[in-house]
Amino acid sequence: MTQRWKITIEYDGTPYAGWQMQKGVMTVQQALEEAIEGFCGEKARVSASGRTDAGVHAVGQVAHFDLERDFEPKTVRDAINAHLGDHKIAVLDAEPAPQEFNSRFSATNRLYCYRITCDRFAPLRIDEHRSWHIKRDLDLAAMQAGAKHLVGTHDFTSFRASECQAKSPVRSVERVEITECEDLLRPGRQIELWVEARSFLHHQVRNFAGTLKLVGEGKWRPDDVKTALEARDRAAGGPTAPPHGLYFIRVDY
Amino acid sequence: MTQRWKITIEYDGTPYAGWQMQKGVMTVQQALEEAIEGFCGEKARVSASGRTDAGVHAVGQVAHFDLERDFEPKTVRDAINAHLGDHKIAVLDAEPAPQEFNSRFSATNRLYCYRITCDRFAPLRIDEHRSWHIKRDLDLAAMQAGAKHLVGTHDFTSFRASECQAKSPVRSVERVEITECEDLLRPGRQIELWVEARSFLHHQVRNFAGTLKLVGEGKWRPDDVKTALEARDRAAGGPTAPPHGLYFIRVDY
Repeated sequence: MTQRWKITIEYDGTPYAGWQMQKGVMTVQQALEEAIEGFCGEKARVSASGRTDAGVHAVGQVAHFDLERDFEPKTVRDAINAHLGDHKIAVLDAEPAPQEFNSRFSATNRLYCYRITCDRFAPLRIDEHRSWHIKRDLDLAAMQAGAKHLVGTHDFTSFRASECQAKSPVRSVERVEITECEDLLRPGRQIELWVEARSFLHHQVRNFAGTLKLVGEGKWRPDDVKTALEARDRAAGGPTAPPHGLYFIRVDY
Repeated sequence: MTQRWKITIEYDGTPYAGWQMQKGVMTVQQALEEAIEGFCGEKARVSASGRTDAGVHAVGQVAHFDLERDFEPKTVRDAINAHLGDHKIAVLDAEPAPQEFNSRFSATNRLYCYRITCDRFAPLRIDEHRSWHIKRDLDLAAMQAGAKHLVGTHDFTSFRASECQAKSPVRSVERVEITECEDLLRPGRQIELWVEARSFLHHQVRNFAGTLKLVGEGKWRPDDVKTALEARDRAAGGPTAPPHGLYFIRVDY
């Protein structure tokens, strides 16, 4: 009998071509599978709760895989971390899971955060590749008013990548919240977009961020977000924000 | 007549051998002097309010230099940033200053923050080189009690690097504060040590951090900090914490 394992992972997405294995480039999935093989010799297939794009970060990605041999949870965590070496990936936690546990299909809730640093002319250095840099200031209240239109069960075709493989464009979004986070360690104004749903369409959070940035700049009124949503047309939505502001925070089961 | 300039600077200290120019290695001072020469052809000498060590970060370092030609403040800021290229250094602000302004000697107050991430087994990835990683949990209340002994005007010989060049070991420390900062974007427990004084001895904040970490681990009692201070002997103080947790936050004039 094999044992199913559930692992919680952090990664800096900057050097990776995203989660999923692809020829000729390094991905998070490949780095993990190589580390697992390095530690125990088993060729496990690691499946994630969500396949993040190139450059997207995670502090609570969850994945599962099966091992034939028995191990202590601490051993699995520490041995994979040791074999990851200089990779920008860390296993925060490893625990045995029932055979029917599936990191993707068992998920009941997912939380993402999109970070924006605005009102700052100089390029980001300490937060380079860690936040979306907008030189001008953004209107937080307008962004908050625009964000409200994205909460609820809707057809999100206007905020869905053309290559999205989901059968239905309908999703139930529980939370779209814009918060400001004062931080003396981070020059400029720190804005965070928190989005929570059972599941997401491809690029959905980045398309929310790109659209709400237009509202923050005053190029769109808050109600234009509603108009875009109701158009059910990707061309009506705002542009896709860059990957490096996005963090996969948490998955609930 | 030359014009004196005051600039406020952010840098990721990771790739630099500290602030001060040295042969054979890249320093923040050298990168800035080369960028200034690249933009206007003038060989300016850039002086900082404090010479940070290798690996130490800054989000509000202040420096001054003189230029013969006249420029708009925005031009100075943006042109230096452009010429810094891929350097992990950014000029946040540039302003003309009176000829007698000296970034080091005119300072009336300096603020540092030392970041610790504890209660986390896995290595830091997104915050690699950005925080001191302690695997076990630390006792915040004990650290706070220990920190109180470091406030005030004292002979800080016990927390002063042997190579410190200051004439007197006496400093007036206005604030030594330990705070916890909850942050869903950062797995592990986030502890910050905030230290404020008109001026500091060499390694003073890093020696405070290394000492208070011993208190947090329970290896020292809070009152042992007082005993160490009163010994006026570097051997009585705790070890020097690593540079990558330290941030130079602000200078007041």
